[in-house]
Amino acid sequence: MKAAPSQEEVRRHNLGTLLRYVHIHGATSRAELTTKLGLNRSTIGALTADLTAVGLVTEKGQRETGRAGRPSLLVRPESAMVYAYALNIEVDRLRAARVGLGGVILDRREAPRPREMQVVDAVRPLAGFIHEMRKDVPDGARYVGAGLAVAGMVRRADGMVRLAPPIGWVDQPVGDALVEEIGGDVGPMVVGNIADVAALVEHSRGAAAGRENVIYLYGDVGVCAGIIAGGRRITGHGGYGGEVGHMVINPGGNPCSCGSRGCWETEIGEYPLLRLAGREDRSGREAVLGVVEAAMRGDWAAQQAVRHVGEWIGLGVGNLVNIFNPEAVIFGGTLRDVYLVAAAQIRSRLNEVALPACREHIRLRTPELGADAALIGAAELAFEKLLEDPLLGATG
Amino acid sequence: MKAAPSQEEVRRHNLGTLLRYVHIHGATSRAELTTKLGLNRSTIGALTADLTAVGLVTEKGQRETGRAGRPSLLVRPESAMVYAYALNIEVDRLRAARVGLGGVILDRREAPRPREMQVVDAVRPLAGFIHEMRKDVPDGARYVGAGLAVAGMVRRADGMVRLAPPIGWVDQPVGDALVEEIGGDVGPMVVGNIADVAALVEHSRGAAAGRENVIYLYGDVGVCAGIIAGGRRITGHGGYGGEVGHMVINPGGNPCSCGSRGCWETEIGEYPLLRLAGREDRSGREAVLGVVEAAMRGDWAAQQAVRHVGEWIGLGVGNLVNIFNPEAVIFGGTLRDVYLVAAAQIRSRLNEVALPACREHIRLRTPELGADAALIGAAELAFEKLLEDPLLGATG
Repeated sequence: MKAAPSQEEVRRHNLGTLLRYVHIHGATSRAELTTKLGLNRSTIGALTADLTAVGLVTEKGQRETGRAGRPSLLVRPESAMVYAYALNIEVDRLRAARVGLGGVILDRREAPRPREMQVVDAVRPLAGFIHEMRKDVPDGARYVGAGLAVAGMVRRADGMVRLAPPIGWVDQPVGDALVEEIGGDVGPMVVGNIADVAALVEHSRGAAAGRENVIYLYGDVGVCAGIIAGGRRITGHGGYGGEVGHMVINPGGNPCSCGSRGCWETEIGEYPLLRLAGREDRSGREAVLGVVEAAMRGDWAAQQAVRHVGEWIGLGVGNLVNIFNPEAVIFGGTLRDVYLVAAAQIRSRLNEVALPACREHIRLRTPELGADAALIGAAELAFEKLLEDPLLGATG
Repeated sequence: MKAAPSQEEVRRHNLGTLLRYVHIHGATSRAELTTKLGLNRSTIGALTADLTAVGLVTEKGQRETGRAGRPSLLVRPESAMVYAYALNIEVDRLRAARVGLGGVILDRREAPRPREMQVVDAVRPLAGFIHEMRKDVPDGARYVGAGLAVAGMVRRADGMVRLAPPIGWVDQPVGDALVEEIGGDVGPMVVGNIADVAALVEHSRGAAAGRENVIYLYGDVGVCAGIIAGGRRITGHGGYGGEVGHMVINPGGNPCSCGSRGCWETEIGEYPLLRLAGREDRSGREAVLGVVEAAMRGDWAAQQAVRHVGEWIGLGVGNLVNIFNPEAVIFGGTLRDVYLVAAAQIRSRLNEVALPACREHIRLRTPELGADAALIGAAELAFEKLLEDPLLGATG
């Protein structure tokens, strides 16, 4: 705010605020929008009319309120007609979705990813998914953009994928390669880390809605975190923040794929869990679930494995609680499954490690949106520009 | 920005921006303000006139530029006539200062603090310092407020001091007690953690100026951090973030005063350094300096102690680098002295622990403002309201 913003700038800002509200909260009555956004009825009416004119929302139906008075129209995001493509490169699978405004998954595809597959080799099957899904896009639908979430380190400045477990260094512009392979006018591809985008979605509409200080832990072979502090994502200088799996917590412990020793993920990742359970010949989400289920059935080795991992999860989470004093820690990926069966160990060790003041308002949670958070989050990367300025490039 | 801000709101915002600029950067020419703030010459002139009228800046003198053209007047903060009181409760000393706008220390007092002294017993001597310094305040000087920085955990909502090393739980409203003891119209006292306020000062005008992602480590008996991510301070939900000294990094290690075991400060705090150097009968900054100097002179036990502590500092900093991907780590308090003699160990261990992408742009630094950062930072707590709205309560 250097010069006074014009009426037009204020209007565009308010349009973005309204659109973002219904994007996150779904169908909302004008009355609720008036209250939540702190704008008067006629302004809400004018903004809604503007967004309707460019095809971003519709206004119809009415919610049953049971209260007397004039029924309020519901403002709904045009989920079926405004969409983005979302792509995920995970350790064990490739996923793609067409996601409508409002975070609605309209169509989806999935394929297993062999662990030896190079990240760039994911480009062709992912592009294939897009080509398939394109066929079912209704006439007149508006394409907003595409987002890619990778289980790896992503440079914020240009979306370069630096490092991806378990295959090591990549240093390839995977987003650009995807754009080229997809062809047509798919436009720029915004790239992010999978824990980061899932954290944002759980923060906006999931298990941490309304909380300003949140740690979303995501586990597979490795462990990383999407961290929200004071309502904003911690990215770090280059975009590599949140590599909590490489916090050394056991200096005399096992060697880590990163070259160091005793990293958190050498105690709580997929490999130590399976090894301790006597199942080192297996891998992936199904194998982790197998251990968790065996532990629940009373299998001794599985129980010992879960207890060991639970202790170390609690210790590392305690460290993060001392550093961030968060309101919520969410366990995602395979850590969700482990958390469900090791919650007691985790909480107990956390209470030993975290200072009382730092942990006094903490809630431990599983994701509300499950694995979809990473897909919806990848779409959010693409929706962001539209939400900032809904009239940008509007043709209506 | 819901309704369009009025011209008056824009003016007040710009007044705050200009005042904050000269508060942080000192005397600045109108030409430089025009460039740095992105406002035209006549606007800068009008804003400067407004701030001059209420006694917050003066305009005179001229900087030697060696360039041709009309000399530019310098806008200076009225450091001698606009002031705050700053108070510090540190582990081994109590300090107070009168700090002028611009962060200039105009007067100061200091007394040792016996380690058995309760935090509330610091109230009387600190109030005494204020009474003494009051006598020399020039006629007509404008008092802005008072800030207190404590080497302990401070609740953000109300400034309640929760925990302070080495005396344990406090849970006392030290700021309110100080206001009562000082008497008169000293007004509300803003309370903060000493590492947090020092971090803000090193970030705005010290070793981390211009950097958005900074970790300021502060060591004495314990270790805590003021952390700045994306240009903003990490406070956590209750204000207790940054308790990095209680990050467990050696689970089989020594018991910590917090009740846990293997916390970072059990390896890098004052006690382990002195114990390893065979000097457990001593304590405090002087004793730490004694070990550092002995190590430089070739004392074997002191060298071993410094090497041990350096290794563990490097490991813990590596962890924080993986979590925050910062541009700068600043070593404050007694860690400054240890860093100067153990930089090689610290850097080497850090390089082993931190992922290359996370550490690729990191700088390790000592504070530029030294111990004064905590005093200037305490004053910043009091100046903040004035900088947000320079006309608030103006009588000029």
